[in-house]
Amino acid sequence: MEKMYVKEITPRSEDYSQWYIDVVLKAELMDYAPVKGCMAIRPYGYAIWEKFQELLDRRIKETGHQNAYFPLFIPQTLLQKEADHVAGFAPEVALVTKGGDEVLSEPLVIRPTSEAIICDFYSRWIQSWRDLPVLINQWCNVVRWEKSTRPFLRTSEFLWQEGHTCHRTLEEAEEEALKMLSVYKDFIETDLAVPVLDGKKTEREKFAGALHTYTVEALMSDGRALQAGTSHNLGQHFARVFNITFSDQDDQLKYVWQTSWGVSTRLIGALIMVHGDDRGLIIPPKVAPIQVVLIPIISKKMRTEVLAEAKQITAGLARQGIRIHLDDREEYSPGWKFNQWEMKGVPVRLELGPRDLEKEQVILVRRCDGSREAIFLHELPARLPLLLEEVQKALFNRALAFLQQNTHRCTDYHQFAGMIEEKRGLFLTPWCGEPECELKVKNDTKATIRCIPFSDSPAEGRCLVCGRPAVHLVYLGRSY
Amino acid sequence: MEKMYVKEITPRSEDYSQWYIDVVLKAELMDYAPVKGCMAIRPYGYAIWEKFQELLDRRIKETGHQNAYFPLFIPQTLLQKEADHVAGFAPEVALVTKGGDEVLSEPLVIRPTSEAIICDFYSRWIQSWRDLPVLINQWCNVVRWEKSTRPFLRTSEFLWQEGHTCHRTLEEAEEEALKMLSVYKDFIETDLAVPVLDGKKTEREKFAGALHTYTVEALMSDGRALQAGTSHNLGQHFARVFNITFSDQDDQLKYVWQTSWGVSTRLIGALIMVHGDDRGLIIPPKVAPIQVVLIPIISKKMRTEVLAEAKQITAGLARQGIRIHLDDREEYSPGWKFNQWEMKGVPVRLELGPRDLEKEQVILVRRCDGSREAIFLHELPARLPLLLEEVQKALFNRALAFLQQNTHRCTDYHQFAGMIEEKRGLFLTPWCGEPECELKVKNDTKATIRCIPFSDSPAEGRCLVCGRPAVHLVYLGRSY
Repeated sequence: MEKMYVKEITPRSEDYSQWYIDVVLKAELMDYAPVKGCMAIRPYGYAIWEKFQELLDRRIKETGHQNAYFPLFIPQTLLQKEADHVAGFAPEVALVTKGGDEVLSEPLVIRPTSEAIICDFYSRWIQSWRDLPVLINQWCNVVRWEKSTRPFLRTSEFLWQEGHTCHRTLEEAEEEALKMLSVYKDFIETDLAVPVLDGKKTEREKFAGALHTYTVEALMSDGRALQAGTSHNLGQHFARVFNITFSDQDDQLKYVWQTSWGVSTRLIGALIMVHGDDRGLIIPPKVAPIQVVLIPIISKKMRTEVLAEAKQITAGLARQGIRIHLDDREEYSPGWKFNQWEMKGVPVRLELGPRDLEKEQVILVRRCDGSREAIFLHELPARLPLLLEEVQKALFNRALAFLQQNTHRCTDYHQFAGMIEEKRGLFLTPWCGEPECELKVKNDTKATIRCIPFSDSPAEGRCLVCGRPAVHLVYLGRSY
Repeated sequence: MEKMYVKEITPRSEDYSQWYIDVVLKAELMDYAPVKGCMAIRPYGYAIWEKFQELLDRRIKETGHQNAYFPLFIPQTLLQKEADHVAGFAPEVALVTKGGDEVLSEPLVIRPTSEAIICDFYSRWIQSWRDLPVLINQWCNVVRWEKSTRPFLRTSEFLWQEGHTCHRTLEEAEEEALKMLSVYKDFIETDLAVPVLDGKKTEREKFAGALHTYTVEALMSDGRALQAGTSHNLGQHFARVFNITFSDQDDQLKYVWQTSWGVSTRLIGALIMVHGDDRGLIIPPKVAPIQVVLIPIISKKMRTEVLAEAKQITAGLARQGIRIHLDDREEYSPGWKFNQWEMKGVPVRLELGPRDLEKEQVILVRRCDGSREAIFLHELPARLPLLLEEVQKALFNRALAFLQQNTHRCTDYHQFAGMIEEKRGLFLTPWCGEPECELKVKNDTKATIRCIPFSDSPAEGRCLVCGRPAVHLVYLGRSY
């Protein structure tokens, strides 16, 4: 029985993609919908998303933003107003052409992102400098008709938050875009225990319609990068085509400066691929729906005593605010339960059997490294919160070490092409700034420039591709 | 200036529908979308919805339910499986016929409600009695292509929660359906301060596909009823067509018994129409995004002192957990602010001027009755939480008195038809149980049976319409 789950999960070394699918299905994070590319997020997966929402929403509000809700439907003509934006999104929109028993005179796009519809409202809501800044966020579903999909990472419908702000000046918009990127970095590193590299996207990789796009990039355990969140300085591109103007303190009518920024359920994919192992998920305590699972080892004679103590421990720790679950199901063996909760990535397991009861202790097992220790019952309330903090830190440090070990400096194109094929990972390389070189790397190696890091050292050396003088050091990598 | 807002809102007595529209627009709860029947929920309106979500979600979880997320898209054939269900919803669905650059081989329905898509998942997730009960809820958007719409009350897209549960027995499903109705009643009465009548819908009025529908009904201040929430015992109707079976403890394969239940953003409409007056919204403290607004009365010489004290009061009350907002904008006059926050329905206003500062007091004004009192600053921290409780109760009691005064017993059809035309309100009347009589009432008077109350007195007397022996006393009324 003990080995059953492990057998059910394909080892990462054998087939990483299959490992990922095995984990999301068997840990009951999601299930495939009857519509291609869509999925249901099952309660355990959704509970992770609710934790993300709680922790990020708090930061979004603390930085002065308010939530709102904008319509799902965007008239096609509205989406088409901003030229770059429509070019970026038109190929992947879902269209509603019938409503009730009537054929619609104008098809409606299901929002792939909400800039167009929100700008339409903002053009009416903003008149004066007194109305600025507008700092609004929404949590919602969006739809992008994807040809090739993968649970959480790329699905036709997904959940996200999208912030949309308007400002008086370019400087304020720039400050906002950078502030929200730093909010994402803090959230992802502190709560998801996923280290990220922050920086700017190249012109080629920026958001359709943006002036600049900033990004946080994470490295998955197979050596591929994942864009974990983006923040865009939209400049006045949308303001001009949607006519969002305000009368400034000098009585001049001016266009607003805008930003937008978002993270999505794909962060659940990052969590899985950064921390997970061949036994399944490993969830950092801060975002774990269940932080501690208590499994009573029930023998016939001590049954009542063990269960009573287990309930008391559970109630006490729950009162402390620890998310603890008592698994007292009698139709499953302890070994089966150990495997199930390991697969589900619960950070800490407590085992309580008759002998533990005699010794007034529990056995504590950490999911992240499998280490076991006995802890006296009276020490548990003080010890457990600290231990959860330790686990959180250990997971971050392990992921950070992996990121560092798999980030290489490289100045030789031939060597780079070989290494990325062989080892994946990220490569910090000099780049001349020309899109042709960027495109050549992509065509030759499938790697893209993940970001131009903020910690941009003064450009030195020569472009990895063309040998001309470099203007940036950039991170190259294959990505999800 | 003082009268401007009042002029902007049409009095209820003059045109109730226009009053409602004036309030939702001018209090910035919503704005109309470029797509007919759709709207944006603006930050102040959405903050009310977030309060509803927080308070109801807690109750949903406390009763053992978990949240999840199911797909927006339902293949048309799936929706068509349950005959009554498709008949009920087919006329009002929005259809996606194109995705990306391809015409879809099967059109996708945008969920009008999620029974069909969820049943498809449940048929795969449930195998054994051990998997039961399944107690899942989702918060999401749904779309019903409505011909005649009104903000919050009936819109083509709206937000709601929908619970979907599966049980071993009919009795368990019945208990669940009634439990969730009582959760709704408790939430709406305790937090929204809106008294409701609970009972059962008639066969004619029940949910398309249900065995029974239970409902909570509220009375708006124009005398029309509003269905505030419903809970359905679905029986095995969906289980049979979607083949949701489980092997029971006796090893027999059986169909599950199901329920579904929901409340939506239309509750915001109920809140407005139960408590609001000719000056605008009145929001009960428990769901008010801002419970207390503090308006400093700034004169030139005491400016610094008044502002400093105002900030200190605000910080202190905020630390206590009171949702207080300091409106220290200097570009607006105090009178303008009084009107604006009255319109926005903030339950309590505090005014702090130079003379108040000298007397170490604030002036406190209650939105619900306009009453003013001076309170010593040192008494405020203890007094304010109690006062908010008082206001919450006063609003409930006022709405309850209105409900009682506008509920009439009536046994004469002619008299009933005259009274409902003249006074609206609810009518407790004997009914024979025949759909023909129910339909005649609707055709003659536009009134429908709102519910068969649980407090069903033994049937006595004769049917209001046909004079045959009555089997129920029912509530009749015109509704939203």
